[in-house]
Amino acid sequence: MSTESPITRPATGVALLPPPDGRLGVVAIGDVALENGAVVPDVRLAVQRWGELSPTLDNVVLVEHALTGDSHVIASADNAQPGWWEGMVGPGAPIDTDEWCVVATNVLGGCKGSTGPSTPAPDGAPWGSRFPDLTIRDQVNAEAQLLDLIGVERLAAVVGGSMGGMRVLEWIVGQPQRVSAALVLAVGARATADQIGTQTTQMAVITADPDWQGGDYHGTGRAPMTGMGLARRIAHLTYRTEGELDHRFTNQPQGDEDPWTGGRYAVQSYLEHQAEKLVQRFDPATYVLLSETMNRHDIGRGRGGIAAALASTPVPVVVGGVDSDRLYPLHTQAELAEHLPGCAGLEIVHSRDGHDGFLTEAAAVSKLLTETMRLARENR
Amino acid sequence: MSTESPITRPATGVALLPPPDGRLGVVAIGDVALENGAVVPDVRLAVQRWGELSPTLDNVVLVEHALTGDSHVIASADNAQPGWWEGMVGPGAPIDTDEWCVVATNVLGGCKGSTGPSTPAPDGAPWGSRFPDLTIRDQVNAEAQLLDLIGVERLAAVVGGSMGGMRVLEWIVGQPQRVSAALVLAVGARATADQIGTQTTQMAVITADPDWQGGDYHGTGRAPMTGMGLARRIAHLTYRTEGELDHRFTNQPQGDEDPWTGGRYAVQSYLEHQAEKLVQRFDPATYVLLSETMNRHDIGRGRGGIAAALASTPVPVVVGGVDSDRLYPLHTQAELAEHLPGCAGLEIVHSRDGHDGFLTEAAAVSKLLTETMRLARENR
Repeated sequence: MSTESPITRPATGVALLPPPDGRLGVVAIGDVALENGAVVPDVRLAVQRWGELSPTLDNVVLVEHALTGDSHVIASADNAQPGWWEGMVGPGAPIDTDEWCVVATNVLGGCKGSTGPSTPAPDGAPWGSRFPDLTIRDQVNAEAQLLDLIGVERLAAVVGGSMGGMRVLEWIVGQPQRVSAALVLAVGARATADQIGTQTTQMAVITADPDWQGGDYHGTGRAPMTGMGLARRIAHLTYRTEGELDHRFTNQPQGDEDPWTGGRYAVQSYLEHQAEKLVQRFDPATYVLLSETMNRHDIGRGRGGIAAALASTPVPVVVGGVDSDRLYPLHTQAELAEHLPGCAGLEIVHSRDGHDGFLTEAAAVSKLLTETMRLARENR
Repeated sequence: MSTESPITRPATGVALLPPPDGRLGVVAIGDVALENGAVVPDVRLAVQRWGELSPTLDNVVLVEHALTGDSHVIASADNAQPGWWEGMVGPGAPIDTDEWCVVATNVLGGCKGSTGPSTPAPDGAPWGSRFPDLTIRDQVNAEAQLLDLIGVERLAAVVGGSMGGMRVLEWIVGQPQRVSAALVLAVGARATADQIGTQTTQMAVITADPDWQGGDYHGTGRAPMTGMGLARRIAHLTYRTEGELDHRFTNQPQGDEDPWTGGRYAVQSYLEHQAEKLVQRFDPATYVLLSETMNRHDIGRGRGGIAAALASTPVPVVVGGVDSDRLYPLHTQAELAEHLPGCAGLEIVHSRDGHDGFLTEAAAVSKLLTETMRLARENR
């Protein structure tokens, strides 16, 4: 990556935040130094915000999105589309925006408004393959840089699931003095072999697409959408469960299509539909980059191992897992609950939806968020 | 497919069988009429045989291979390479070749000596995309045609797991009068949505490879090996378990490679190795064709449903499943055991290897084979 651009000195203060009605803003946070020594110059982070900041700036709840999520947690003034955690945030919701100021960013390296492979590098051309490899810690550091600029010293809470839960863990272990309470959902202390196996396979499917062009397809009129769609089909199977899929689809054909004469099965059509939806809204190089940050996720790295790292944080934390999750199985949350001193015990979300349960089980997740905000209030 | 070639009248008699030392033979079984009305002319089936035929031809045990298996069940006189079920067949083995004559074919549509997409059509060019779609029933009918030619009216036993278990089920339900006993391992009554989901995704990864060329790549010097390797990586994850993979590989790098600078993770290297091994020995169009036969597997199709179909067969049958199988979960074998009148109850193989347990758990599988052969002796 280029290191020749001058150091960017961004503006500071709460005025950087977008309005409290969820409208999308972009905040320039300056250069971000990465763990590997690289510097991403002039980073912008997409930010959405719901609720008013308290005069002492002590009521910020950071909501962390998962791999293909973004800052659009709930519908906003400028975008009526439902967000990925609709119902969890708002007036009277589990994270009550009459009390809390919810902030959500699109992650560093993302493709929904933040600086990443699909955005222009200092030379004006898309970053593409020149965008440096990242870690979850780098992404949390970028968020901390944003909060520094706003003037928020301490988060009332940080919450998230899956890849979002990885950032929550990095917050509470890496910067415990800045967090009053946390919710960690559907994630583990490090990437498992199974997760790395499926993620590296998905990455390989994308980079095998002839339209990948070494990762420098942006602006060429060709993008590895077939590969990304296939990666999503692989991923989506890991997000759901055998039982739920079979209950919905069995071996039935799709509508009046006939799989015996070139038609599709219902589950095949469903997976193609999920793939198509992602292809319409997501950048393949970003998918590859963020998948690699997940491969690298290891809360114990450089901290004396997982047990020591988790034992080091006093932050009150709710740890939740979905009993049918086949990608981030319950034992990985049990390990977190066991080693985190601030955790009162593993919270099990019952669901037949598997990993996606952290998105679909609104009632159970509401309870966990409510408990998290109670801890935040206590530890404020 | 072509239907202009004249009807082939193959030779008949036990002399068609290859020698009893496992040497590979190829038997011309004539034209095979398929369920969909197509006819595959002049079909050849690869056959291996271990043990002598009894004078009354009543001691034949048919061993059915899985998706990427073949007729090489154990090492043979002309091929010292271990087979896929080494130890299960031989003098003094669970299927004792001092008593039984073991016959294994490569399935119709296969690529290990039998007629399939990679072999020449009547016009001399490879079948390729012209090879007709098949069902498991078609494959069993081809085997029945082979046995007719040899003169074997009734099998002492038919045994197999996974795709092989599908053929076992079709034998005992479709032609129960021809089977004395059976072992059905690690399979269900029909394809589940999860199986169809992963199989159609694998097929799509192969056909998205630019070297696929519409399925007519044979002889072009280019074959969709990248796609098939990726399909195998997807499949292999479903064959193993989260726990076993993580126990072996965790998030460790491969040897002294560094995933932070382009190196690989251990599990990634393992999956690439599995892919490479398959690419060296298997034909992608065959992989696609056989995956579709598995999608279509439904023992109840045209028979009044699964329960009725299973209830219709009196064949004594051992049904086994692996407790950690995430592709063919235990409840799918429980359904078989419940509805098959000839089954004394589900046999659970304890393993951390998942679906592959039907290949790796030699002691447990030996017991099931021994019990199957006891039933075969009783019901001979």
